[in-house]
Amino acid sequence: MKYDHIQQEAYDANMQLPKLGLVLFTFGNVSAVDRHLGVFAIKPSGVPYEDLSPGKMVIVDFEGRTVEGKLRPSSDTKTHAVLYKHWENIGGIVHTHSTYATAWAQSQRDIPIFGTTHADHNTVDIPCAPPMSDEMIKGDYEYETGFQIINCFKEKKLDYKETEMILVGNHAPFTWGKSAAKAVYNSAVLESIAQMAYLTETINRNAPRLKEALIKKHFERKHGPDSYYGQ
Amino acid sequence: MKYDHIQQEAYDANMQLPKLGLVLFTFGNVSAVDRHLGVFAIKPSGVPYEDLSPGKMVIVDFEGRTVEGKLRPSSDTKTHAVLYKHWENIGGIVHTHSTYATAWAQSQRDIPIFGTTHADHNTVDIPCAPPMSDEMIKGDYEYETGFQIINCFKEKKLDYKETEMILVGNHAPFTWGKSAAKAVYNSAVLESIAQMAYLTETINRNAPRLKEALIKKHFERKHGPDSYYGQ
Amino acid sequence: MKYDHIQQEAYDANMQLPKLGLVLFTFGNVSAVDRHLGVFAIKPSGVPYEDLSPGKMVIVDFEGRTVEGKLRPSSDTKTHAVLYKHWENIGGIVHTHSTYATAWAQSQRDIPIFGTTHADHNTVDIPCAPPMSDEMIKGDYEYETGFQIINCFKEKKLDYKETEMILVGNHAPFTWGKSAAKAVYNSAVLESIAQMAYLTETINRNAPRLKEALIKKHFERKHGPDSYYGQ
Amino acid sequence: MKYDHIQQEAYDANMQLPKLGLVLFTFGNVSAVDRHLGVFAIKPSGVPYEDLSPGKMVIVDFEGRTVEGKLRPSSDTKTHAVLYKHWENIGGIVHTHSTYATAWAQSQRDIPIFGTTHADHNTVDIPCAPPMSDEMIKGDYEYETGFQIINCFKEKKLDYKETEMILVGNHAPFTWGKSAAKAVYNSAVLESIAQMAYLTETINRNAPRLKEALIKKHFERKHGPDSYYGQ
Repeated sequence: MKYDHIQQEAYDANMQLPKLGLVLFTFGNVSAVDRHLGVFAIKPSGVPYEDLSPGKMVIVDFEGRTVEGKLRPSSDTKTHAVLYKHWENIGGIVHTHSTYATAWAQSQRDIPIFGTTHADHNTVDIPCAPPMSDEMIKGDYEYETGFQIINCFKEKKLDYKETEMILVGNHAPFTWGKSAAKAVYNSAVLESIAQMAYLTETINRNAPRLKEALIKKHFERKHGPDSYYGQ
Repeated sequence: MKYDHIQQEAYDANMQLPKLGLVLFTFGNVSAVDRHLGVFAIKPSGVPYEDLSPGKMVIVDFEGRTVEGKLRPSSDTKTHAVLYKHWENIGGIVHTHSTYATAWAQSQRDIPIFGTTHADHNTVDIPCAPPMSDEMIKGDYEYETGFQIINCFKEKKLDYKETEMILVGNHAPFTWGKSAAKAVYNSAVLESIAQMAYLTETINRNAPRLKEALIKKHFERKHGPDSYYGQ
Repeated sequence: MKYDHIQQEAYDANMQLPKLGLVLFTFGNVSAVDRHLGVFAIKPSGVPYEDLSPGKMVIVDFEGRTVEGKLRPSSDTKTHAVLYKHWENIGGIVHTHSTYATAWAQSQRDIPIFGTTHADHNTVDIPCAPPMSDEMIKGDYEYETGFQIINCFKEKKLDYKETEMILVGNHAPFTWGKSAAKAVYNSAVLESIAQMAYLTETINRNAPRLKEALIKKHFERKHGPDSYYGQ
Repeated sequence: MKYDHIQQEAYDANMQLPKLGLVLFTFGNVSAVDRHLGVFAIKPSGVPYEDLSPGKMVIVDFEGRTVEGKLRPSSDTKTHAVLYKHWENIGGIVHTHSTYATAWAQSQRDIPIFGTTHADHNTVDIPCAPPMSDEMIKGDYEYETGFQIINCFKEKKLDYKETEMILVGNHAPFTWGKSAAKAVYNSAVLESIAQMAYLTETINRNAPRLKEALIKKHFERKHGPDSYYGQ
């Protein structure tokens, strides 16, 4: 009973992934956190979306230990745990292998900011963290993936509260947000941005990045103190 | 009661956007005008399509001021207002971030007229207006976007009654027409033309533009005084 | 009553086009012939697919004259008429602006035979007829389009009974077959072949054409006297 | 009655192909084996998916001879027979002409291992067998196709129990697995990997292959003795 609310939130958000065309089979997972209880609810590993129910969401603490639940949690659970522990304002996390975002990750390139669709959500290129060192991979892999993400943000001087998405080089995207639903929204936006950037470069190899004035304008009309987008 | 007809028209047209695959989430808006009353009905900002109803369409005048409605109108409202004010024969306007059209806009290139699908609707390359000056962006941005569109048509000597679509550089497409439904039709046609032009250039980097005789023939059989397309 | 059978056949075949993703709005048409009566039934011009019914199919003779029906026939009717008149074994004809096939037509290139999917249906590259001369375009355009197709087959020494599809340069594909249903099948196959060839060239600019032994084998196992495909 | 279980298994697996978007019309087939009885059930040739039923699956032995069933089995039956005969741990086989996998086959290139989506399922590039010699093609073609696959695995020193998919050059993919359902799963995974690799190379022509440590890690977390993926 104690965890019903985050199990429901995680379940609802997970069920959006196939509807939005972001996952094939079980290649994705969403979690939702309760900061007060210090735990999050996450999709069980390898269970098809059509077999999920709120009660099957596994309850895990910020060290990645299962607190409640009969099923094994997602194999990416420790990455979620590290991000929740270190980034205190995150309410939900999503990992997918969505087609275009994953292709950029495999290409080991940041996604350039080419237009206002991108600027409506981010003021910077979508960062692509480099693949990890062999030592990190052979060690506690999913745990280290979380640090690879955090270190990339530190190095590029990015703020996780403003930029809510990243590509992990050779792997795939992670997104987050104030809630699990917002993190799912960010995954869909990222996939759309990734596809448009792909097409833009094919049409014009020398397509220029968006100018600073437009980046500022579009981000602020949606997110700034004087934002006038939405209700 | 006074605005029911344009609210219904704007609502019906807005609901076509997700059905035609032209929008993700709330990234698009349609308006419908009543020239006699001097106002138009437009989608409220940031409201998901499934939550819309005719009564939620906001009534706005040609200066962009809300005349009736409890919700905030689309953030692009002033662009619509400028176009209605200066182009007297427009009955409806659409703005989307549809994938291929937006990729061309991000590439800052006109879409070349490569075939009869294009010529059935336009006799010219689809124009791409250059990104605005920093002064315009920092000023009344959406208002200036309207002028950027109008100035592009003036400079290229285009007639808005013949060419009912434009790309705004680094941003995305706008289309219009005698009615909101026709403007939506034009958005779908533009997306299809944009995709075909993308593929055409990939197949043959030196693909020739359509010859003048074919441009004239196809446009006139659908739109000329002796047109014989349709009933 | 006399034409019920071909009206039904043409109607059923037309309704397959949107289901197979081959048309946007009204950008396509199918006809079905009765050789004994010397007429064919064809889609009325510009009527949305959801508003069609068998009785709305227009009956036309081989000179392109309407024999029965209150609606104006497809603007491409004369192209159909020419093909029925000169190619005596055709039972149905389809014209679409399907995305990938149209992109190849706009590129003015034959579609190379790269694999067995292609060879299962054709032993040759899919021909692309050159755009017509200005005189032909200014003359009886749709009538001349029919001759452009027939002349292309003569020049390339192709047999319309073996190769049931063509691209008209800068325009779009036409397909045919023993029945209207078979012609629709060919349109879907052509679109699939066109997409695969597009991808093949992008992956490997020097991708080799299929070797003769494989072309022969695959075509004959499906169409030769000793074919063993199907029931 | 004797064959009900493999007919049902083959039927269920075949019906997944159109649902997963892996086939156009009848361009694909699945079989399911009973090792004890020494036979497999396979889709009848050229029968549309909507007309299939479990009882229509044809029962064939490992020499490719029909044991039971009124319909002619898939034209690719002998390829299935050869693989079942020589690879003793296979429970099901799938052949499709899925779009991206077929494009790679037509390009006659192995699919490079670019990311963890690939490594989750294979530790090597997806092999592309060269097109067969003219003698093999003119001989018992489908039978020889089976040997072409087996020889390619021998030459590249691959284990069919670890790598459960192959491209046949100029033709299309084959996949297999412990069950027909697993073989279908592999076909969908292959199509996804093929699309991502296509996009990766377009974004970055010099995209590096995945490093060995990551290949090992991802494969083992899903398939190794200490795997921790799934339940």
